[in-house]
Formats: sequence, C-alpha cells, structure tokens
Amino acid sequence: MHEECGVVGVSFKDEAPAALSIYYALYALQHRGQESAGITVHDGAQVRTLKGMGLVPEIFNRQDIQRLKGHVGIGHVRYSTTGSSKIENCQPLLVSFKSGNIAIAHNGNLVNSKELRTELEKEGRIFLSDSDTEVIAHLLVKKLMNYELEDAVQELMKLLIGSYSLVILIDNSLIVVRDPLGIKPLCLGQIDNGYVVTSESAAIDILNGQLIRDIAPGEMLIFSNGSYESKHLVKSRNHAHCVFEYIYFARPDSVIDGELVYNVRMRIGKTLFEEHPAKADIVSPVPDSGITYAIGFSKESAIDYMEGLMKNRYIGRTFIMPGQDMRETAVRLKLNTIRPNIEGKSVVLVDDSIVRGTTSRRIIDLMRKSGAREIHVRIASPPIISPCYLGIDMATREELVAAHKAVKGVEAVINADSLGYISLEGLVKSIGIPLDDLCVGCLTGEYPVEIPGERCTRRQLKLSEF
Amino acid sequence: MHEECGVVGVSFKDEAPAALSIYYALYALQHRGQESAGITVHDGAQVRTLKGMGLVPEIFNRQDIQRLKGHVGIGHVRYSTTGSSKIENCQPLLVSFKSGNIAIAHNGNLVNSKELRTELEKEGRIFLSDSDTEVIAHLLVKKLMNYELEDAVQELMKLLIGSYSLVILIDNSLIVVRDPLGIKPLCLGQIDNGYVVTSESAAIDILNGQLIRDIAPGEMLIFSNGSYESKHLVKSRNHAHCVFEYIYFARPDSVIDGELVYNVRMRIGKTLFEEHPAKADIVSPVPDSGITYAIGFSKESAIDYMEGLMKNRYIGRTFIMPGQDMRETAVRLKLNTIRPNIEGKSVVLVDDSIVRGTTSRRIIDLMRKSGAREIHVRIASPPIISPCYLGIDMATREELVAAHKAVKGVEAVINADSLGYISLEGLVKSIGIPLDDLCVGCLTGEYPVEIPGERCTRRQLKLSEF
Amino acid sequence: MHEECGVVGVSFKDEAPAALSIYYALYALQHRGQESAGITVHDGAQVRTLKGMGLVPEIFNRQDIQRLKGHVGIGHVRYSTTGSSKIENCQPLLVSFKSGNIAIAHNGNLVNSKELRTELEKEGRIFLSDSDTEVIAHLLVKKLMNYELEDAVQELMKLLIGSYSLVILIDNSLIVVRDPLGIKPLCLGQIDNGYVVTSESAAIDILNGQLIRDIAPGEMLIFSNGSYESKHLVKSRNHAHCVFEYIYFARPDSVIDGELVYNVRMRIGKTLFEEHPAKADIVSPVPDSGITYAIGFSKESAIDYMEGLMKNRYIGRTFIMPGQDMRETAVRLKLNTIRPNIEGKSVVLVDDSIVRGTTSRRIIDLMRKSGAREIHVRIASPPIISPCYLGIDMATREELVAAHKAVKGVEAVINADSLGYISLEGLVKSIGIPLDDLCVGCLTGEYPVEIPGERCTRRQLKLSEF
Amino acid sequence: MHEECGVVGVSFKDEAPAALSIYYALYALQHRGQESAGITVHDGAQVRTLKGMGLVPEIFNRQDIQRLKGHVGIGHVRYSTTGSSKIENCQPLLVSFKSGNIAIAHNGNLVNSKELRTELEKEGRIFLSDSDTEVIAHLLVKKLMNYELEDAVQELMKLLIGSYSLVILIDNSLIVVRDPLGIKPLCLGQIDNGYVVTSESAAIDILNGQLIRDIAPGEMLIFSNGSYESKHLVKSRNHAHCVFEYIYFARPDSVIDGELVYNVRMRIGKTLFEEHPAKADIVSPVPDSGITYAIGFSKESAIDYMEGLMKNRYIGRTFIMPGQDMRETAVRLKLNTIRPNIEGKSVVLVDDSIVRGTTSRRIIDLMRKSGAREIHVRIASPPIISPCYLGIDMATREELVAAHKAVKGVEAVINADSLGYISLEGLVKSIGIPLDDLCVGCLTGEYPVEIPGERCTRRQLKLSEF
Repeated sequence: MHEECGVVGVSFKDEAPAALSIYYALYALQHRGQESAGITVHDGAQVRTLKGMGLVPEIFNRQDIQRLKGHVGIGHVRYSTTGSSKIENCQPLLVSFKSGNIAIAHNGNLVNSKELRTELEKEGRIFLSDSDTEVIAHLLVKKLMNYELEDAVQELMKLLIGSYSLVILIDNSLIVVRDPLGIKPLCLGQIDNGYVVTSESAAIDILNGQLIRDIAPGEMLIFSNGSYESKHLVKSRNHAHCVFEYIYFARPDSVIDGELVYNVRMRIGKTLFEEHPAKADIVSPVPDSGITYAIGFSKESAIDYMEGLMKNRYIGRTFIMPGQDMRETAVRLKLNTIRPNIEGKSVVLVDDSIVRGTTSRRIIDLMRKSGAREIHVRIASPPIISPCYLGIDMATREELVAAHKAVKGVEAVINADSLGYISLEGLVKSIGIPLDDLCVGCLTGEYPVEIPGERCTRRQLKLSEF
Repeated sequence: MHEECGVVGVSFKDEAPAALSIYYALYALQHRGQESAGITVHDGAQVRTLKGMGLVPEIFNRQDIQRLKGHVGIGHVRYSTTGSSKIENCQPLLVSFKSGNIAIAHNGNLVNSKELRTELEKEGRIFLSDSDTEVIAHLLVKKLMNYELEDAVQELMKLLIGSYSLVILIDNSLIVVRDPLGIKPLCLGQIDNGYVVTSESAAIDILNGQLIRDIAPGEMLIFSNGSYESKHLVKSRNHAHCVFEYIYFARPDSVIDGELVYNVRMRIGKTLFEEHPAKADIVSPVPDSGITYAIGFSKESAIDYMEGLMKNRYIGRTFIMPGQDMRETAVRLKLNTIRPNIEGKSVVLVDDSIVRGTTSRRIIDLMRKSGAREIHVRIASPPIISPCYLGIDMATREELVAAHKAVKGVEAVINADSLGYISLEGLVKSIGIPLDDLCVGCLTGEYPVEIPGERCTRRQLKLSEF
Repeated sequence: MHEECGVVGVSFKDEAPAALSIYYALYALQHRGQESAGITVHDGAQVRTLKGMGLVPEIFNRQDIQRLKGHVGIGHVRYSTTGSSKIENCQPLLVSFKSGNIAIAHNGNLVNSKELRTELEKEGRIFLSDSDTEVIAHLLVKKLMNYELEDAVQELMKLLIGSYSLVILIDNSLIVVRDPLGIKPLCLGQIDNGYVVTSESAAIDILNGQLIRDIAPGEMLIFSNGSYESKHLVKSRNHAHCVFEYIYFARPDSVIDGELVYNVRMRIGKTLFEEHPAKADIVSPVPDSGITYAIGFSKESAIDYMEGLMKNRYIGRTFIMPGQDMRETAVRLKLNTIRPNIEGKSVVLVDDSIVRGTTSRRIIDLMRKSGAREIHVRIASPPIISPCYLGIDMATREELVAAHKAVKGVEAVINADSLGYISLEGLVKSIGIPLDDLCVGCLTGEYPVEIPGERCTRRQLKLSEF
Repeated sequence: MHEECGVVGVSFKDEAPAALSIYYALYALQHRGQESAGITVHDGAQVRTLKGMGLVPEIFNRQDIQRLKGHVGIGHVRYSTTGSSKIENCQPLLVSFKSGNIAIAHNGNLVNSKELRTELEKEGRIFLSDSDTEVIAHLLVKKLMNYELEDAVQELMKLLIGSYSLVILIDNSLIVVRDPLGIKPLCLGQIDNGYVVTSESAAIDILNGQLIRDIAPGEMLIFSNGSYESKHLVKSRNHAHCVFEYIYFARPDSVIDGELVYNVRMRIGKTLFEEHPAKADIVSPVPDSGITYAIGFSKESAIDYMEGLMKNRYIGRTFIMPGQDMRETAVRLKLNTIRPNIEGKSVVLVDDSIVRGTTSRRIIDLMRKSGAREIHVRIASPPIISPCYLGIDMATREELVAAHKAVKGVEAVINADSLGYISLEGLVKSIGIPLDDLCVGCLTGEYPVEIPGERCTRRQLKLSEF
C-alpha cells in the first residue's frame, strides 16, 4: 500500500542558503517518498529548480546544492505506484504566469481533481501532466487574475475537496496552506535565522530547530523577510487528521498535531493487550512496523518481548524464479525466523495492519514451519474495510480482506490461532484526539468529504458556508 | 553554431508498428539533433510516449519500441545549447485538453513567441516549459475551442511568425504543417502500407520508401486510414527556404525542396573556383563539412584534391588543461594535419562558412606550422553578417567576424594568403532556387519576416492578406 | 570499523542451478559486505563467473543468474575500506593452472601474507592483486604439483597463519576449509538435493534448508555428486572463535558455533545489568546495534525499554558543509532524538562497543541537548584496547580511545554520567563458549597466533606439531 | 573483422605529467581499439593505474588524469570481439614481483601463446586472465630472476613467436620492444622535455611532437632521465610489416615504417586503375574506408569522383527486427545511396577489402535498386584467402569468400558487373616496401612465422640463430 509524499518550505531572513536546509529536511522525510525528489529556490531575482528520480542523496550532490542559490525555497519527496513513475510528475511543479513564476509542492489527494480538470479543459486549458498539482497551479493562477493573494488562496480552497498540504513559492514569497480538515500533517519550526515548514517535525530536528506548532487546518502562512503572517482562510467545525500517519507513515520521532507518534504507538500496544489479552510465551513484532506496538503490548502484559522474525536490512530489488519453494524464499529474503526464539512457543505476533492478508499468511506459515506452537495475532489498527481516497494508495475494496470477511474469517485466512484488532475506540483513545477530528474513512467507510458512491457522515461543508 | 531539430510523422493503414519506423527515421535524422529524442504513438485507443536525453539508440531499446504500440505516431530529435538542456524540453510535447490528447513536435523558431506567450499569460494561462512548442499547443487548443480542425490550424498559422515544420498527433490523426515561407524543410514519402513525413528525404530512404514531394509552404496534410488530405491554408507570394540547410545542416543524400544537397554543394564548389580562382598545388577540405565543396572546386580547377587535414572519428567530450600548448593540442585532437601532403605546398583550403574566425585561424596556424607555403581559403557561403532568428543558434552579431570586418579584414584575422567567399548570386545560382524564395537573412541582414530592430525587405504579409 | 566478508558454496546432486541458491544466500549475507559480490559456477564442462561492484541485487539480474549454468559453485560478498575498493579485488578469484581451473572465495585475514608473498616472489612468481586470496591460490597450486588434494590442502594449511574460511572450486569439486582455530564462522546445511556451506546459518534458512553443523576448525569437506567427505587435517588444542561475530557482525538469527547470536546478545544485556546496575527512568539502545542488548538489560533491570533515538532507514551517501551546526546535523541525519522520550529523564544508553569514542560523544551531546537528565552508558563489549589482525579493520591502536584511557577517562571523553563495560568474564559467560576457545585479542592484546610486536599467550603451534 | 590495439609510452625528463600526454595520445589512437583503455604511471616512488571499459574520454576525467601522478607511464586502447570483453582483460597489466612492479601494454598476437602458457603451468604457475600479456609478464619476470634487464628481454624475445609491440614500465623505467619481424608498428617521437613511443605517428602530432624514427624490428629502447638507450637484441634477415596497417587500420595521417599511409592509399588507387581500368561515369567509394583509394583511382582514370553512398556519422548500437525489409534497413542505417548520383550510371565502386562478401553484396543490391546501371568493383587489397594469426580477428578460412572462390566466383557472389582486386605486386609497389619485408600471410597463405597447419615460406629463424 501507500502513496505518500513529503513537503518542506524554508524561508531565511538573510542570505543563508535555503537549498542546503531543504536538502537535509528531505533526507529526514525520505521515508515518505523514495521515487523522486526536487528542490526549487529563489534568490530574489531568479528561480532555480532541480528534480530527479531516486533517493535524495542520489539526486543532489554538493555542487547541485551550491548552484541552487536562494534564501527561500521548497522541496518535495514522492512515492508512487510503478505505472506513473516518470520525471514529468516530479515536484515541485514550476510554472510561469503573467506575473512571474509559481512553484508548488503538494502532499495529499484531491477528490474532485477530475471534475476541476474537466472544468478547466472546457475553458480551453491544457495539461502537461496528470497530477493534482497542475490542477492546483491552474486554479491558483486563475484566481490570482482577479484577486489579491489572500483572497485568491481562499477562493482556491473553496474549490479543492480533499487533502492538501501545500508549500508554494510565488517569486520569492513562501506560502504554505493546509486543507480545512487538516488531513495531511504540516508543521512550523523555528530555525537559525528563519523558519521551516514541513510534513513532519523530525525534519525540524535535523535542522537543529524547534517545533513551534502545527499549521492549523484551513490556515495559510505567508513568509517574507524572516517573518510570517497567518491567515485562517477556511474554518471547519471539525478536523480529519489521517490516523494512518500515526499507525504507519510518520516517523516515531515526529510530533503530529500535538501527539508524539512513538507515544501513540506505545499506547496502542498497551490498549491492544487490554482489549485482546493473550496467554503466550513471548510477544514478537513483525519488523519494523510492529516493533513499538509490541514493546507496548509486552510492557502491559508482562509477556517477554522477543524477536521471532529478523528483517534483512539490505533488501534491494530482487527477482524470484517460478516455483513453490521460491515463494517461501521470497518471504525469507525479507523476514527470516529466529527459530530458537519461537520453537515450541506460543507467540503474540504484533503488526500495524492487515491489507490483503497474504503477507500475514506467509509470515505465519513460516513461523509455524519454524515450530511456533500458537500464534496470536494482534493488529494496531481496526480492520481496513474501505479504500482511502485522500492520499494513500492502499488497495481496492476487492483486495481488502476485511472488506469481505469478519474477524473470524480473516483469522482463518491468515491461519492465526487468534486474531485481535484494536477497536476504533481504543485507537482513538490511544491517539488522544477526538474521533470527530480524525479521518477514519478506511476503517468505517464514512469519509470526511463527499466521495461519489461512499457515505459521508459529517454533513459536507457547502462552499457558501465558508 | 546551430540549434536544430528533426521531426518525423508516420501513418500506417493497418496495424504496422509506427514506432519502429519512427525510430529508424530518427536514426537517419540524428545529425539534426543529438541532445534528446522522443517518440509518441497512438493505437486508436491510447497514446504512448517515451523521451530521453542522448542519442536515439541510447534512449530506445527493442523492448521500448515494442511497448510503443500504435499505427500512427510522431518523433523528434533535438539539439540545444548547453544551458537549457533538460528533460522537460524534450519533444514531442504531449498535452491533454478537453477533447483528448495532442502531441506536437516542432522544427523551427517563432519570432513572436514571447509576444504570443505574454498574450496567453494575460488570459490566465500557465507555462511549464520555455519552449515555442508549448505556445503552439496553447494556441492550437484555443483555436480548436471555436473552430473545426482545418480552420483552427489556419487561425493558428495566422498567429505564428517564424519557421515551423510541425508534426502533430491529435488522438490518432496525424497532422503536418509547414510554415507559409517554407523556411525549414519537410517532405512526404510513400512507405509500405503508409506514409512518412520527415525533415529530410534521407529518412524516407532508410525506410525503403519513395520521396513523393515536399510539403508546400503553408500546406497542411491530414492523415487517416492510410490516406491523406491536403489543404493549402496560407498562401505566400514567395518562399524563404533556409540556405544553410544546403550549406551545412542537411545530409548530402537528402533532396530538399527539389534539390539534391550533394549536387548543390558540388555546384557551389565549382562556382567558388569560377569566382575565386587560385593557383595552388592542392585543394584540401576542412573535413567533413568542406569535402564536397573541395571536390567540386578540384574538378573545376583541375587542381589536385588532396586531404591535408585528418578528422578524428572518435571524438568525445574531452577536457583541456590550461596552457598555450594545450590550445594547439585541442585543435589537433579533432583535426590533425597530414604533413607530407601540405609541406612546401600552396593549398586551397575549402570550408562551408566562417562564424567567429577563431577555428579557421587555428587550423591555418596548424597548417603553416606543418609547412604549408600558401593557404588560399575558399568559403562555400557568403560572409555571415547577421544573426539567425529562425532556427539556428549561430552566434550574436558581436561574435560574427564578418559583421565587423570586410573580407580583407577577415583574411587578416584568419591569417590566410587569400580569402574568397562565394557571392550571393553564385550561391543562389548553385542552389537553383530563385533568391526571392530563399531565406538569406544571415547573409544580408534582411529577413523574410519582421524582426524588431532588423530590416525586412519583403513587405511583411499582413494577417488580413492571408 | 569492520572489514568483513561472507562466503557460500553450493553443491547439488543433480542439475539444479547452483547460481540461484548462491544468489539468495549472498543476499542473506549482504550485511557482511556491501562493496562487491561475485559468483563462480561449474557445470561439469565449463566454469562461469560474474563479479561486480555494489550490492547483490545491483550486480546480478535474472538473465545473469540463468546464464551462470552449473550445479556447483561458490559466492562471495566483500566489504572494504575505500582505498582498495576496485574490481580487481572482487572474489571469487578464478585462476587457471596446469590441471584446469581453481576459484577461491575467502573470509578472513592472513597474518603472514606478506612473508608468504615474498617467498613466492623469490621463486619468480608474479601477483596481479594485493589480496591474500591470490597468495592462497599460488600456494594451493604449488602444493597440488606435488601432493594429492587432501595432502595438498593439509600442506597449505601448515603455511597459513591467520583466519580463513575458504570455499574453493577445483573444476567441479567444491572444497571448503576452515582454519585450525575456527576464527571466522563457517557452517554446513542440508538443502533440497544438495548441500550449502556458508558463513552464517541465516543463509541456510533463506534456502529453506537445515543447519547440520559448523565446519570444525581445521576441517576440510570435499563435495561431489551430492555427498561429501570430511577430513580433519589440522588439530588445534583450542579454538579461537571471534567474539565480535557475536557482538556486532553476525545476524541475530544466525547460529554460530552452536550459539544463537540473538540469545548471546540478550544474555549480554542481562549480564550488563548485573555487572553495572543503574537507577534510571528508561533503557534506550543506540539503534540498531544496541537494541537486543537494551531489551535484555531492560528485562533484567525492570527499567522501561524506550527508544530515545531514531535511526533514519534511508541513509545514503550524503555530504556535509563545513561549520559547527553541520556536525550536529550530520549526526541527526542518522540518529534523531525522540525528545519527549528522554526529556528530563535518566537514561541507560546501551551500545555494542566504543572504538574512537567520537560517535558516542556526539550522540550523548545530542541527548543532553534534547533534555536528558542523566546518561548512563552500558557497553556490550569490554574495552577495545588493541587492533584486530584477523579480519576486522577496526582502527589503529592510536585511534582506540580505550587503548590510552581507563574507563573513567573514556567516561569523561564521551561525557557520560557513568560508563560500564561488560567484563571479559561476563562476556564469555554470555557467549557460552570457554575463553580458551575464543579470540579476544582486541580486548586483551593477547592473540591466538603470533603477530610481530604483539603478545601471544597461547603457545603458538609450531608447524612441526601439526 | 579486426582485433587490434594501440600502445603508447611517455618518458619526461622532469616532473611533467605523463598521464596527460598519454591520455591525448590514446585519444589519437582510439580508432585502434574502442572497447577499453588504461593508463599506468610511475612518479619515482609509486605506481598508479586506471583502466575501464569504453572510449578514452568516457573512462578518464580531469580529476583522474590529475591523480595519475608520474613523469613516466604507458597506455593502451583495446578492441576485442564481444565474447571476451571484460574488465580483467584491460591493459596495462600491472603485476608485482620480487623487485617491484611491472606494467605491460601489448599490441600484437603470439602464435605460441598456448604452448608457452602450458610450459609455465607445468612449473606450477597460475594465470588470472587468458591474455598473451600475462604470459609475457610471467616470462619476463622469470628471465629477470637470472639475467640483467637487457639479457632478460633478449631471452624473452627468443621465446616469443608472433607479433608484439610492447611498452613496459619496470618501476620508473620505460622499456619498449618491437618484435624481430616488426609486424605491428611502433615509432619514436620527440616531445617537449621528453619522448613518446606509440603505435602511430599521428599520436606524436597530437602532442605537438616530431617523429624521430620507427622502432627497429628486434630493437629495445630503455628510457630514463629524459634520454634513451637503444639495443638491437634480435636480428632478422627480413621484416614482416603487416600490409593491413596500410590498407585498413592505420590513420591516413600516420607514417608507418617510413611510408605515409595516405600516400600509400592514393598510390593503391592509381595502381588499381592501371591494373583494372574501367569505363564508367563515376568513381564512388564505400565510405569511409574506400575514400582515398577512390580519389586516387579517379585522378588516374580521369573518371569523375562522386559519392554514391552516404555514411551515417551517428551510428550507435541499434537493433533490427526480423523480416526481409529490415535487412535492407540495416544496411541503409549505415550507408544510404545518393540516388541521383548513381541513377542510370555506370559506377566504379572502390573498397579496401572483401572478407565474407555479404556486406559488398548488400551494398551493390542497394545501388542497383537505386538505379545504378553497371557496378564495377575495385578492391584495394588482393583476395584474402587465409586467416590472420598475428593480430587481426578477420574471420575463419571457412568464412573468407575468396578462400573458396576464384575472382569470377566472388564477382558472382557480390553481384558485380566486374570485379578487380589489386595484384600483390601492385600492392607491394604502392606500399613501397619490398615484399620480403611485408607480412602478406592473409593474401598468400604463407606466413613469416611457423604456424601449425600453415605454410611458412621464409625459413623460420631458429632460436640458436639469434
């Protein structure tokens, strides 16, 4: 699963080189996208941009960063499913318009992208990519034809439905915008001589900076000359922070919308035990995603934490020959069992989520082959029963095992002795944010924005209500 | 000098794979652009495109060509000065608009590109590249909002000032357009089961096809289902075929606007002797560009043809260390003298043109050092006194040695014993096309289109006159 | 620190492709060497080899593995300090000699390599690389001139001083040899239709095989036609298994000389607490190397295990600009603090070893800056006071902080509130192998083989005693 | 056809950087080998080497050349058939032996390489490559065990049968050796502050140097401190200069064994007409190899020189799809016809040689398709009837069309109206060197050295006669 991105914006008061700080911040956000990366900077007179396919240190070298002169800039890392991985889709997207240049980097997904695009095409406009970002660029420029910046952005936000954490460079002004529901994270940090805005606070730490606060849902910040102005452009009764940022995406050392991800995960682990206790010899995570949950579970249950699976740190793209044995080899290349730790034992196996169930099944088969006596699976998220339309490429509804089977059915599919998912209540409690301010569409099938063919429990905010 | 491009369009009646033919045609056009190449094809249902930096065989492999399914398509090779060499500028440019997809490949240069772009930006449009081609895409789509295809293209042509040989794919229709002055070449060939349109007829030969005719200036062809329709959309009293296609760019084995390039060059060589006879022991070309001229000169003069300079066939990008000796080495890496052929001899040295004069000077110095007694330079073009605005990146007026010096002055700069340029009349006679139908702006400073700050001898065609 | 290698040999009874199994095994051994890898196979008639720089999946693709036909073969992964990283040093080393081909892959380091080489050069022999492996190849071929295989290998072993786990292919016979002290690991596994010999048992798991046993120190195995013969060629009163295989190198899921590495590390963690108890709020590892130790420490001490440092999983080769801030950034790029987990807390920080002390100092400074109240460092190895001559490129004696300072001195250097190293006795007990059968040269300065300028507590075995 | 190599050695009196001069010389020798290149230099204290696959400018950049410090050094470019193209075979071959380092670069082919190797293997020696050069390295070191340098090289030369132009670096002494028959070229030049030895004099020109003389067959030069000493170690009654250096390999601007290649080719062209006159409208070369011959033929015959074929300058590695049309396309990608130049005409087509006849046939078919009325083929070499064992990978005897057919038969195979090969006498006269001093084995089947299964007209020199 998982289409994701990371964004960063940096504004220095003086001549400090923004590109270097953006480079390090992208490095810290690399887990949010490994397919491509890009940096755009402005030095007051000229805009410069460099984008490429691959990991941040593969794309940029010292000379590149030195050539990217400018005290203000934005950056982006991108993940994508294989099909559409091409250089044209790399961000920031840089466009020229009547008053100069605009560069945009975007984390999120618009639900009404196709409709907006069709509207724009009806006006005779053309598109060079199939990205949401180009749609946003068209709309922003269109609004800037008739409005001042603040109003233009407000008008833009009225049109966009979905998740968007945006960092925008209009000539040498940095503008950041977070969608009214605050679906994707975005936070503000103080760094030496300036400010940084980024998807995760861990990137602020890298720059030896201090997290100031999250960008509020519906808020716009405009940076210039080392200070910034805040505008709350769109108000929303409630927010809809993505729970999977806590469950899977974000780094444990990031603080997102006020909560340290590590702590959330530890609390989830504890809650999992409260809700689904188990008698077992050991608690073992599926590495790496299950580790913190398993430690929390172990602490609460007093069952020994012991690693029964070993992840290969040097996994690259390999190939598998046809044949039954090869399927087992394919799993073992990534996850080997530590046989003596599980042989003859009853094991609580903790993972973050179950999507299709096939990987869980293979891991459990492997553990049984290595002699595990009982395997009690505990999952840090409630069953995923519905697709995500707001930024995560999880799977189609057909592929989601929990969309079609009750817990007992999934238990059978993955061949576990018992299976316990955390409850939605338990998850919400562990995160520490009210349910009404979370997006749990994939867990409930009820989304915070109107999506054709899906339920929307919250009354959709009408444009006129903004 | 020389910014150039090559284009090709292929339309098959049946399911034959257009990409393979385009690939081979681009191979034959490689001399027109070595920086990047691209192919776009359509199979009736879907558009597919692949572009990349480098030479044609480096970009496309067998699998790529097989994946590019479709019986109609276009291709492009591109040369460029170093600065703007980036993947975003590769062609074909593929855009989506309200009725589908348009892919465009362009050879030429618009003189009013900036004005057109500014107009479009005033309407709120945005640009993702700085290419003329994106301007053309906007205008074409804009016209298609209000007109049927034929009228839309005619309206488009009324707006474009400059040179343009265009191959366009609108969904699975191939459309080709040549500017009303016919500045850049474009010709039509019959191939097995279909048609090919290409910058040079040599690319038709590669496909074992037959040259049918040149696309007429101002003509549009629309291909579908293995046949084509011709529309003469814009009439121009006269044409303005670029003389430098004959002098330098085109392959000798291409027939351009009715004239075989090899024959033109042979005639130029003969005319050069008639106009500037010389008594000498040998006639020697600057390889490769001077070879055919030198053979013509030798034949007419009965002076022995003998190579005094040897070109290294394996020149790649090398580097030169600072120092006087190194400058000589730099020349010798590309062109070595065959000392025994020139020692003690009076040499007629034939080249296609002189731009800055520095290369000529270095070659002559080298030949003198190798013992040449006299060096009589004969040049296959008249003095270049003015820049090209219509597709060739020659040099600025400041850099053009003949813009500031009379022939005697250039003779001194390059250290020749005598210097003879072909006359404009001699050139025109050798080409075999009336002066009124040639573009000789770089040789006279008078251009066939209005260019701010330059003279335009021909009365500029007003839009209303079309 | 750390020059290391991994080796694998595979022998199938039938036509099964050895290269595929070797490929997967090398994948599992990737942590032992990321600089280069190679595979050599024999199909009964012909030897085939492929080597390259980089990671295993970067070097070999599906076609490569299919082309490497043969039912018997060997493989190698190699780590190296930057200086000597070149393709010529990649293994297996393939040589031809009077009776055919020999391919050799080697893990270990010869102490008397230079002397042996000088002797060989005195005989007029030449060397194309500077590797120990070429020395071994010369000696083996030399002995094969006068002895049958078994005796030749025995004679060879009499000459070699140091560590060597060898997999050798003489035409289509696989021979494996482990040095008489068993310094580097080597074990035997049963796989479907054949056998595998490899540095670590985790590679046997990958192939869905079963660990049979370790190769005994001084033992040679000869494989042919799906069976093998064992010869104990050299007896040693004691062994000298490298303790750092347990402390750092080996995968936790490998069983080495009878001990599961994970369990050894867990026991070390517990022993560390027994020897150096601490009152603290949390136990935190330096990830990844300190994790298992910290879990053991936590279990024994009942102090909460909590991660105070977060490792960036996507670290590539980056660059750092000069400046004080940049040094902090350099550390944070690899290890970020999870501030809320350590702020105001007393932390037990667990790591595997201290070499120069500089990294420890930077981590502790970072943790203090993030608000840690007290930092009590616990180290899973005794102080490293002496270099390794037997396969690990740790550092020179000058660089080793503990070579020049007592524990209190190191404590000051790294700025810890307290520092506790495990004792040698505690380490030995935790490993579960008698001290007399371990190599602890780097911890005591007393080596199991004679090294000029160093002490050798064990009476060195004289050649005549074999 | 054609396995070839180029070598260069440079010795400076002072601290001038040899690597830079070697780099440029290799550039000038690139036509002798495009597969790999290497440079080895010595600065008095240390040897440094860099080798790689590809063209010279692809392998070495400015930093590489600057790092290759040393005032003396050697270089090599290598061509090879696809099979054995691997980095291990790149030269110079650098070995260490008892007294230091030896680096060797070799152009030529030993006829008795296998025998010598077998002898060496019987002594227990091992080989890491399958190159002649490693055999030479073993023998040289072996002789240096018992002899001083001069005698050692003389002893070495007594053992080697075949062609060898060697440049050798023993520590910081440059030694060059040419085989007693002088089969492959090697010449000496004066450059600023030192000397250069190289396969072709064109490489001396590049360095702004002066050709002093050819290295004599059987001669050794030893360079040190900016001067050199000459030793004529082996005398041979006659020499055996390879005629194909003149016919095909060497650059036209090189002087080889006293003859300018360009002039030889011009004389061959004239002689061809004398021996095989033709009535025709034009003389046309197969470019590039036939050009100079065609010019000579034209001059002598007074038949117009006119290019009927056009070579694509940008040929890279392409692929061809199956199918009849594709074969024609394959030829046209490299050589297009200039139809108007040949249509309806009788053409004399001049080429350097015919190996298999298939390429000639395809070219002639193409020209006939383009309307040529008659095609009279004239070939600058006599029929190739026998393989080359001395450095050229032409073809096997089975593949050589002239090995099995008389001229009339070849004429039919290639579909020419007439076919005329130059006579051996005509060739010898044109070269200007007596037949007894040329190697014409491929033309007569009689070789200057004994080759099992082949005739050797010259009495083979016995070792005792040296």
